[in-house]
Amino acid sequence: MKISNIEKIVKKTFLNFNLSEKHSKICAKYLVKAELVGAASHGLARLKMYCERIKKKTINPKAKIKIKKISKSIAHIDGNNCIGFISADIGIKVAIKNAIKTGIGLVAVKNSGHYGLSSFYAEQAVKKKLMVWCFTNAPPAIAPYGAKKSLFGTNPICFGTPTGNKTPFILDTSVSMINRGKIRVAAKFGKKIPLGVALDKFGKPTTDAKKALKGVQLPIAGFRGSGLAWMVDIMSGVLTGANHGGKVKDPFDDFTGPQNVGHFFLVIKPNLFVGKNYYKRIKENIKRIKKLPKIKGIKEIFYPGERMNARYKRNLKKGIVIQKNILEDIKNLNAIK
Amino acid sequence: MKISNIEKIVKKTFLNFNLSEKHSKICAKYLVKAELVGAASHGLARLKMYCERIKKKTINPKAKIKIKKISKSIAHIDGNNCIGFISADIGIKVAIKNAIKTGIGLVAVKNSGHYGLSSFYAEQAVKKKLMVWCFTNAPPAIAPYGAKKSLFGTNPICFGTPTGNKTPFILDTSVSMINRGKIRVAAKFGKKIPLGVALDKFGKPTTDAKKALKGVQLPIAGFRGSGLAWMVDIMSGVLTGANHGGKVKDPFDDFTGPQNVGHFFLVIKPNLFVGKNYYKRIKENIKRIKKLPKIKGIKEIFYPGERMNARYKRNLKKGIVIQKNILEDIKNLNAIK
Repeated sequence: MKISNIEKIVKKTFLNFNLSEKHSKICAKYLVKAELVGAASHGLARLKMYCERIKKKTINPKAKIKIKKISKSIAHIDGNNCIGFISADIGIKVAIKNAIKTGIGLVAVKNSGHYGLSSFYAEQAVKKKLMVWCFTNAPPAIAPYGAKKSLFGTNPICFGTPTGNKTPFILDTSVSMINRGKIRVAAKFGKKIPLGVALDKFGKPTTDAKKALKGVQLPIAGFRGSGLAWMVDIMSGVLTGANHGGKVKDPFDDFTGPQNVGHFFLVIKPNLFVGKNYYKRIKENIKRIKKLPKIKGIKEIFYPGERMNARYKRNLKKGIVIQKNILEDIKNLNAIK
Repeated sequence: MKISNIEKIVKKTFLNFNLSEKHSKICAKYLVKAELVGAASHGLARLKMYCERIKKKTINPKAKIKIKKISKSIAHIDGNNCIGFISADIGIKVAIKNAIKTGIGLVAVKNSGHYGLSSFYAEQAVKKKLMVWCFTNAPPAIAPYGAKKSLFGTNPICFGTPTGNKTPFILDTSVSMINRGKIRVAAKFGKKIPLGVALDKFGKPTTDAKKALKGVQLPIAGFRGSGLAWMVDIMSGVLTGANHGGKVKDPFDDFTGPQNVGHFFLVIKPNLFVGKNYYKRIKENIKRIKKLPKIKGIKEIFYPGERMNARYKRNLKKGIVIQKNILEDIKNLNAIK
């Protein structure tokens, strides 16, 4: 299906669920973009969930986002329980503006929700020739090192920098062995997950996606990954005023209240210390790494974001295929009055 | 041996190698502190190397550190090829001062050297009730994902926050499966390293520390850890004006010039967004995680920095044992005129 058509249909869904014209457009754009970059787990499969949360009043479709200026560099945003895309989109834009003015922009967001892929926000900063870090917490999925119950979210670490060429360097990595969304998609389509990425509810390794969803995901590298997940929870939750320490609600399963996810955006000018040489330096850096001798089976060393960018461009041209059941969902949602 | 005595002897060594009174004291303090926290690989075993680099003019004992103010929040430091402890110590102090004044402090350091443990600097910020991130690059040790030659350093990620109690939360984790210093110590004492943390020079897994030093260390979690190492190299090297992309020199083996390591310090006030509640919130966060049901064999879940702090206190009381060969080295170094 053509991208512009899908965006129109999805926008209509959000309008139908009482979001404003502007907010509906933002949400539709980000959801479709997830499909375009090949992250179906963050894409249209979530549309029904957003609508259900609006219906059950755990998402506020008429959210009034408040921006509190702390200094010329720093701002605090209250998302008023909006869909995460909306407050995060405002958050990164404020951080970008502050960085352009003062060299550094820091924005904390509270009372938000799942904001899709961190790379969407990082990309905006990089397009303005800025370096960027994006952090968000998420519902319990990973067990802290030593615990047998999950508490941390998959808490991604995202970093972006301009590269001097058209494809930005965007690292966007969760600190779990596998993305929760990927397990969710595997469960939906009855596929297996790799061994060693999750435990079932009894603490035993499993390749059954459904059992993994009820169990515990494993952090990367034991206590190291556990520590990184803890850091992200403190930055995104404790610092910002959002939920933290396992209290971020699962958007699919927990309708007892708003998610209250937190985000942390840091943006800086890459020319602060080396001036215009930054571009020469980053190009040289990437060149050196790409030139290294490769292990068997590897033709090219990609920098983070390169492959996602290629997928995005490919899909933008040829369009995307939407699963029948999701298309059915959208039709039903758009028919509700 | 008593701590104050060791510090005196080590200070004498640095004085003997033409460092100023002030710089000798700083370097002695940090080296001994590494021993106290149980990181022998970052401790006195390095003293001889520092002296050799001074003798071979790849470390400047009379370095004049330049601080360039970029804004009230941001500064750039040129270490003038000093021992890393010195410029990093100044760097974190400037970042702390700026954060106290403006809410956020960012300091980039270039022309520096190996600065010991990141946690030493993080701790200083946390003691002033601030949140902190410290990054540094390092000589090639880890192969980028897909490459069979090492290029990234062990590039640690360090994060600290006050906890409202006496023991700070300090995560200090390299993005390699194992610390290069630990392999070095294992090689020195003929001990084995675990399987799966390094490859020999032919690309085969090895448990022989000496072979691992000539081979390649593995990043945590494949492309994820490789991406994190790349991020740290860009932040610490490309951005700051220091060496990067595999050009940071190995302090033990490469005397062709100064190391030119780079550091990146970011400090913020934890009360920026939630005021004094930060302490209540971080205490609650830690409490929830400590209360989780534990896996078999685990009595307590520690937060990052807790065990290191305990080791430090224990060793501070009882003193530390210095290996005979290192004591011999120090005697020889102090006898040189």
